Amino acid sequence: MAHFADRALDAIDRTHSYLVVGLDPDLAAMPPELVGAPRSLEEAAGVAEELCRAIVDGVAGSVPLVKPQSAFFEQFGAAGLAALERTIAHARGAGLLVLEDTKRGDIGATMAAYATALLGRLELGDGEVPVHDADAVTVSPYLGPESLEPMLATARRYGKGVFVLVRTSNPGSGALQLLRTGDGRRLFEHVARIVDQLGAADVGERGFSSVGAVCGLTFPEDAGALRALMPRSLFLVPGLGAQGGSAADFPLFLDEEGQGALVASSRGIASGWRAQPQGADPLVRVREGARAAAAEVNETLHKALGEAGLLRW
Amino acid sequence: MAHFADRALDAIDRTHSYLVVGLDPDLAAMPPELVGAPRSLEEAAGVAEELCRAIVDGVAGSVPLVKPQSAFFEQFGAAGLAALERTIAHARGAGLLVLEDTKRGDIGATMAAYATALLGRLELGDGEVPVHDADAVTVSPYLGPESLEPMLATARRYGKGVFVLVRTSNPGSGALQLLRTGDGRRLFEHVARIVDQLGAADVGERGFSSVGAVCGLTFPEDAGALRALMPRSLFLVPGLGAQGGSAADFPLFLDEEGQGALVASSRGIASGWRAQPQGADPLVRVREGARAAAAEVNETLHKALGEAGLLRW
Repeated sequence: MAHFADRALDAIDRTHSYLVVGLDPDLAAMPPELVGAPRSLEEAAGVAEELCRAIVDGVAGSVPLVKPQSAFFEQFGAAGLAALERTIAHARGAGLLVLEDTKRGDIGATMAAYATALLGRLELGDGEVPVHDADAVTVSPYLGPESLEPMLATARRYGKGVFVLVRTSNPGSGALQLLRTGDGRRLFEHVARIVDQLGAADVGERGFSSVGAVCGLTFPEDAGALRALMPRSLFLVPGLGAQGGSAADFPLFLDEEGQGALVASSRGIASGWRAQPQGADPLVRVREGARAAAAEVNETLHKALGEAGLLRW
Repeated sequence: MAHFADRALDAIDRTHSYLVVGLDPDLAAMPPELVGAPRSLEEAAGVAEELCRAIVDGVAGSVPLVKPQSAFFEQFGAAGLAALERTIAHARGAGLLVLEDTKRGDIGATMAAYATALLGRLELGDGEVPVHDADAVTVSPYLGPESLEPMLATARRYGKGVFVLVRTSNPGSGALQLLRTGDGRRLFEHVARIVDQLGAADVGERGFSSVGAVCGLTFPEDAGALRALMPRSLFLVPGLGAQGGSAADFPLFLDEEGQGALVASSRGIASGWRAQPQGADPLVRVREGARAAAAEVNETLHKALGEAGLLRW
C-alpha cells in the first residue's frame, strides 16, 4: 500500500479539509430516544456502532480521516471491540482513512502484538489476516524510542502511520512535558527530536514521514518550536472546541506551504444532532448533525487559513 | 471491596510468594501440537484461552497474582477480548488477584472509559455491570498526574489498584526516564514523586496505597532511590529472566520489613512445559510446567530474601 503520509495528504487535498472526526461513542451525549436503556454490554455496543456509522455516513467525502477512540469501545467489552472492528471497516469502505486513537506503549514482543492488532496482520495456519486494520495509531513515548520500533516496523511494512504523543492538549500535560533538562530543553522537545529521527528513514513522496506527532491546539505558543523540530512529521492537533483550542491558531501548526497538520474534533461533531429538527429519526439527526458540524469546522478552518495566507485551494 | 494493597499483601502472605505470573499467550512459544494451525482469529483466541487457563490452574494457590497482557489478547481481535474476559474470570475464580497489564494513558472522559472497562462497571438501563473487572492495571504517566485521576477514582471506588510506569525494565527506557532536570533529578524521580503524592490520600490498613509503581529489576541501582521516594507504593518489578534481571536483586525493591514489592515473570513460567515429559497431554505439560517453574522462582526468591535477612515466613 502507498505510504501513509502520501495517502493522508492526498485525502486532505481531495476533501479540501484538515479535519479528523473523532468517533467517541459516549452514550450519555447522544439522543436519549436512540440510546434508550440498554440492558447488556452487547446492546450498548450495538447502539454505539449505529451512532458511529451515522457519523461516518454524515462526514464521508467531507473530511480525510476519522479517529475512533478505542477506550469508548473497550468500555463495552468484547462486544465493543467487535463494534470497533465493524466501524473501522465501514469507515474505510466509505473512503475515509482511519486513525485509531489508542495511545499504546509497550516493549518488544508486546508492542509487536499491539502493532499486529492495530495496523498489521496476524499469521495463521494458512496465511495472514488483518485484525483492526486501521491506517494509523497514536502511541505513548514514555518507554523510549526503542519501545516504538515494533510499531514503526509494522507501519512501514503495511503503509501505515504512527502518531507519537509529544505536547498533549490537556491542561495538566505540562507536569512532565514542560520539565526542563539541564540544557534548557523541555521534555516535549526531546520527544519531538526523537520523533523526527524515527521518521527520517521513511519519508514519502510528498516529503512527510510515517511518524507523526500529537500536538495540542491548546498550546499554540509551542507550535513554532514543534514545527521546527519535526519538519517532516504530520501533526495531529487535538483540543478544538470543548478543550478550549481555537481554529484561528491551527495555521501555526502547518508548514510554510499550508501542509502537514490535521485538526481533531470529537464532541463538536458528535453533538451536531442537537441543532437538527426535533422529531426526526434520531440516526438521521446524528448523521445530518455531524455533516453540518463538519462543514462548519471546515469553513472556519478555511477562513483561518485564508487569513494566514495558507489556503491551498 | 477491601483496599487493593491490603488484598495484595494478604495474598502474598497467604501464598508465601511475591511472584506475579504473566499471561502473554504468544502462540509461537507454546507446544506446537497444541497450537496446531489455527485458521481464524476465533480459533487462535480459543487456543490462547486454553493455554492461559492451564497456566492459571498450574499456579493457583502458589502465587498471589496473575498478569494478563492485553496486547496478546487484542491481537486476536474481539475474539481475543472475549478470551481475556473469560481468562480474568477464571483466574479470579481460582483465588488469584488479576493485574491487567495495559499501560493505558489518556485524559478526562476517555481515561474514565478505560477505567470503566478495566476496573469499574458500566452503567446500563437497569443497573451497572462489570466489564473486565480486573483487580489492578498498569498506566502510563506521560500526560501528567491530572490524566491519571479518572483511573484512580475508579480504583478507589471499587477497591482496585493502579501501577504507574516509573522506571521500566527495557534497555532503552533511559532515553527519557533518565533525562535530568535543572535540579539534578531524573525524569523517573519526578514521576516517582507524583506517584507518592497521588497515593497519599488512599493508604490501606497495612500502610500501602492503591497507587503502585512499575520499577524494572534490570536497574537494581535505582531501587533504593525508588523505595525512598515511594515508601507507601507497591512495586511491580518486571524483568526477571529473559530480560536479564536477577532474583538476587529483588530484595532491594522491598522495604525494611520485606514488604511492598512483587516480581513479574511471564516467559519463564509459560515455557515451563519444555521441561515436562514429552508425549504427555500438551495442556497438562503447560499446567505442570507452569506449576514447577513458579515453584522454582518462589524458591529462588526465598533464598534471596533469606540472604538479605528479609524472609518473613
